[in-house]
Amino acid sequence: MARNLPEKRLRVHFEPDNIDTFAIPGENLLDIARRSGVRIYASCGGQGTCGTCKMVMEKGEVATTRTQRLSDEEFNKGIRQACQSKVLTDLSVSIPVESRLEKAVLAHERKVAAQTVATGWQYKPPLSKCYVELPPPTLDDQISDLSRLLRGLKQQCHLSNIAVDFSVVKNLASTLRQKDWKVTSTTLTKAVKTKDERRRPTIIKVEPGNTSQKHYSLAFDIGTTTVCGQLLDLNRGTVSAESLMYNGQIKYGADVISRINHSQKPGGLKELHTAVVTTINQVIDELLHQSGVNIRHIGHLMLAGNTTMTEILLGLNPQYLRLTPYTPVANFFPPVEARSLGIKVSKPVYLFTFPDVSSWVGGDIVSGVIGCGMHQRKTLTLFIDIGTNGEIVIGNSDWMVTASCSAGPAFEGGGIRHGIIATEGAIQDFTIDAQTYEPKVGTIRGAKPRGICGSGLINTVAELLEAGVIGQNGKFNRDLATKRVRPGEDGYEYVIAWAPETQIGRDIALTEIDIENMMRAKAAMYAGYQTLSKSVGISCCADFEQVIIAGAFGSSLNIEKSITIGLLPDIPKERFTFIGNGSLMGARLTSFSTDLLDDARRVAQMMTNVELSGNVDFMNNFIASLFLPHTNANEFPSVMKKLREGKQRITI
Amino acid sequence: MARNLPEKRLRVHFEPDNIDTFAIPGENLLDIARRSGVRIYASCGGQGTCGTCKMVMEKGEVATTRTQRLSDEEFNKGIRQACQSKVLTDLSVSIPVESRLEKAVLAHERKVAAQTVATGWQYKPPLSKCYVELPPPTLDDQISDLSRLLRGLKQQCHLSNIAVDFSVVKNLASTLRQKDWKVTSTTLTKAVKTKDERRRPTIIKVEPGNTSQKHYSLAFDIGTTTVCGQLLDLNRGTVSAESLMYNGQIKYGADVISRINHSQKPGGLKELHTAVVTTINQVIDELLHQSGVNIRHIGHLMLAGNTTMTEILLGLNPQYLRLTPYTPVANFFPPVEARSLGIKVSKPVYLFTFPDVSSWVGGDIVSGVIGCGMHQRKTLTLFIDIGTNGEIVIGNSDWMVTASCSAGPAFEGGGIRHGIIATEGAIQDFTIDAQTYEPKVGTIRGAKPRGICGSGLINTVAELLEAGVIGQNGKFNRDLATKRVRPGEDGYEYVIAWAPETQIGRDIALTEIDIENMMRAKAAMYAGYQTLSKSVGISCCADFEQVIIAGAFGSSLNIEKSITIGLLPDIPKERFTFIGNGSLMGARLTSFSTDLLDDARRVAQMMTNVELSGNVDFMNNFIASLFLPHTNANEFPSVMKKLREGKQRITI
Repeated sequence: MARNLPEKRLRVHFEPDNIDTFAIPGENLLDIARRSGVRIYASCGGQGTCGTCKMVMEKGEVATTRTQRLSDEEFNKGIRQACQSKVLTDLSVSIPVESRLEKAVLAHERKVAAQTVATGWQYKPPLSKCYVELPPPTLDDQISDLSRLLRGLKQQCHLSNIAVDFSVVKNLASTLRQKDWKVTSTTLTKAVKTKDERRRPTIIKVEPGNTSQKHYSLAFDIGTTTVCGQLLDLNRGTVSAESLMYNGQIKYGADVISRINHSQKPGGLKELHTAVVTTINQVIDELLHQSGVNIRHIGHLMLAGNTTMTEILLGLNPQYLRLTPYTPVANFFPPVEARSLGIKVSKPVYLFTFPDVSSWVGGDIVSGVIGCGMHQRKTLTLFIDIGTNGEIVIGNSDWMVTASCSAGPAFEGGGIRHGIIATEGAIQDFTIDAQTYEPKVGTIRGAKPRGICGSGLINTVAELLEAGVIGQNGKFNRDLATKRVRPGEDGYEYVIAWAPETQIGRDIALTEIDIENMMRAKAAMYAGYQTLSKSVGISCCADFEQVIIAGAFGSSLNIEKSITIGLLPDIPKERFTFIGNGSLMGARLTSFSTDLLDDARRVAQMMTNVELSGNVDFMNNFIASLFLPHTNANEFPSVMKKLREGKQRITI
Repeated sequence: MARNLPEKRLRVHFEPDNIDTFAIPGENLLDIARRSGVRIYASCGGQGTCGTCKMVMEKGEVATTRTQRLSDEEFNKGIRQACQSKVLTDLSVSIPVESRLEKAVLAHERKVAAQTVATGWQYKPPLSKCYVELPPPTLDDQISDLSRLLRGLKQQCHLSNIAVDFSVVKNLASTLRQKDWKVTSTTLTKAVKTKDERRRPTIIKVEPGNTSQKHYSLAFDIGTTTVCGQLLDLNRGTVSAESLMYNGQIKYGADVISRINHSQKPGGLKELHTAVVTTINQVIDELLHQSGVNIRHIGHLMLAGNTTMTEILLGLNPQYLRLTPYTPVANFFPPVEARSLGIKVSKPVYLFTFPDVSSWVGGDIVSGVIGCGMHQRKTLTLFIDIGTNGEIVIGNSDWMVTASCSAGPAFEGGGIRHGIIATEGAIQDFTIDAQTYEPKVGTIRGAKPRGICGSGLINTVAELLEAGVIGQNGKFNRDLATKRVRPGEDGYEYVIAWAPETQIGRDIALTEIDIENMMRAKAAMYAGYQTLSKSVGISCCADFEQVIIAGAFGSSLNIEKSITIGLLPDIPKERFTFIGNGSLMGARLTSFSTDLLDDARRVAQMMTNVELSGNVDFMNNFIASLFLPHTNANEFPSVMKKLREGKQRITI
């Protein structure tokens, strides 16, 4: 480079982040934004298909490939999709509110009480500390330094059958003598216990003096969208601090498929790895800041993530996850030294990941199952985590089957014209006046609406269905006396909020295409329950004694409305339980209990995964579910009863 | 440094190595020789006490502190002790033949047939390779890559309960696909099996295609003096090549105490570590050269060494070994990645060391015991390794006691005026004409004599005793009609070779002080047998059913003569067995058998070490042994008979 003529460089300015950067002519505008740290959301990862990375060109010119995601009105206002634009001149752009990533609301959203938690486990963290006072050697007692330590640990801490990391031996002689043969040893149970074997803890650190009061670890949920961490006090079994941030990978796409695609570009895997490690380090900084704990007292990391997130974090190439027949590199990963991955903890801190079941049923699901204790009960349970990929587990303490269905991004705002993720100003609550068809709308944090999030979408469709604004096929009733139902670019639509009421200055409407996309998503989930149930010979869905809903999205669900549209099975409401971030809960509990850590390995091996792609039964069930709530009315008796009563009311 | 005025630099030239180097005024001449790679022997490590590092000043001047080790004659000829000399001017020196380290003779010396070898073990190396052909994944068989490999290893290689190194997972996906799902896996049994547990091999490497035919490892004896290595073919259970070299640490002193002293100097530990690693790498180069094996097919290293050698090799500070109460850092060291120590093998090759028993009874002794199978037999055995430190093991398959006694360097040429190590020109055989007192001398390789080695010393003293030239107190009979017995600088002496017959151009004589030093050495050994026997309530030495003599020095011993002087117990000759380098033998056999590797750990733990320093019983035995063969005639009935008969013959 140094010897070439300098390339022409353009200036690019981003608002409202107030970021200035340089670019070369022809460079992709989304790439520029990503590398400059601009807070931008790009749901599809820059394919041009989602329309979330819109920017307003304030000054300067770009060359854009226009897609369907951009309306005439938007185009004329100077709005462009960043991923489809190349910079030609110096540029000044602003990012509209609906394309921005905001932070504040997240922490609030996740505060869901866990009602179902694993029980009956012994409090015995895999990481333990013990302070010992050793007798100094004499001519009558001249065993080696290490033997002396091991003897002390056996006598004073009841630890036996111990292995030792070589790094411990390295400075052992001076460490022992530094504070007069008084030391604190840190042991870690690295290997999972199999069958009748005894556990074999490993000494990973020996410190002079008594440091046993400073004994912490970290639990993490590495989500595709957010990274959530907890700082755990292992002496007290409590959470000292909690923090979460968007996964830095989000700029490379909202879902795992976009991430895998990006990983196949030159340097892509490295970028993704660095992005998530940077986020983890930021979360750690925040946790330390909140708690005042010193980083060198963090002794362990327990991480749960889906298979893609886990593989990328470990620096593994995830390419085969998305190539048929969808094979992960491994289901179980040995503990890794966290520093070797770039995580800024001290040495030696080992990072544990949860075992994966398949390419699409990952460690986050195993962690959730362990966290809620599903594996401890005889209760026949349906465990679900709804997202772009919906994961389903059916079973109890004796057996479990799992599947993943590609629900599409509708519940996360993708493929929905005004869809956004659950952030400030997202429409979440929706009720409709059965006479006037006028809506009453509630948004997150009560801000002016700027879009509609997944749970809002479900609530809106359910209300529109019950009010007869749409039929069971998801199409609008075109004969209603309301201006809110109108023909639009994507067929008929219902205006939820008029332009002046919104943050974005345009009408927020729900279109028939939006509804169709949502129906596909919910149909995939329901067909999943059915197919998986049939595979083990149980009746879906009356047989389910308990339904556990994990995940941030699940937490904001209205159960009744979700049953109405056919996303959740039509069984008594008291059988449903939300557990919020089950993945994080599992990571926390396994940090507290080595028994549960053993369980995680055992449960992952016990889970039988059923591949739904290409499964004829699943396809049939899926097509039958493309109706509100379902083409088979017998599946949803209570909903059908409600719809009949509503129709009578409307008719009267 | 760069900002200071340049220091004056002197030139130093060494002959016969023809090495030129620079030095700063006042720099120690031995240090200069060491850092320049001059082949020099410095038995005491540069303390000035041994007199082995003599050099002839050909040109230029040094400032020397003169010690007793330098005769007037030598001093006048311009000979100086390098360690006691500081360079003052440009210098040209030559190293006399007796101070040089030669190489050639070593390999020859060690060719001793092993008559006693461990038996009954299963051929099952800790390192094993297996080639598997895996079925490619399909939608019906979409288990993870790692699970597929593990399943294949279970089905095709009967390997179960396997752990996996993370480095293996890292590239597994591409490795498996590289040669169409045909791979060779390398597994290593890292941890020693305890009690009833199953072994847990770890996969450390997976290679595309079939590499199972290339399957090698290295066994090493890391001696204080020499480093001996063997390249093992693990498919055939054979030795493909063998090589040995002086331990590069030898320039820092001949014995472990000098090495420990050197390790306490600034940078000393690093120098010692680098020196031995360099030697190991040179031996490896030689082994690869001899065998034509590629370095990447070496999968494992098994090393046996004494406690000091082991700790220094592992980069551990050995300082506490020689400080009372003599504690090693650890008795057992976990496997270490060889490359992390600087050993030039590929990654990941793990290095195993043998467990140590105490500061002075190390892994080399454990290895020797395992190698000769002493732990497998009920036979009450005395196992000895004679050197500057003599190590003693007494026991059988049920129990073992160990001790180390500081015999001093006499058997290795130290403290003996014309003592040299067993190298070309060393006097080894000696017989005397009972009438004329004229000697018949045999040297190693038949060269002109240049000194006397340990076994020559024993043979000479025994013959002189039997011929009545010396009495049982080690003093010369001054009334004999021979010019060979004469007063000298160190009391009376016997001239073994006149100046013209020698390489060194001076008379080679044995002095009363030399004999006294040898008597101290043999007395220490014998007192060791006695003290250790008494500690377990057996009678020394008639109870010993077998005596195993390990070590290079032992191999050249004349048993009868050794009994005559009281070094070996007076029991029937057929009970004695030489095993040569037992340490290397043990390293080789444990490379072939995981059972024996387990045994090594078990045996080391079974051994009870008895500390002889400060032991009153030992001191009494030692003093009683300072006689030829012993003050208690009943200990040596056959010798006493021979001496009586000899005396009668002489008298007649």
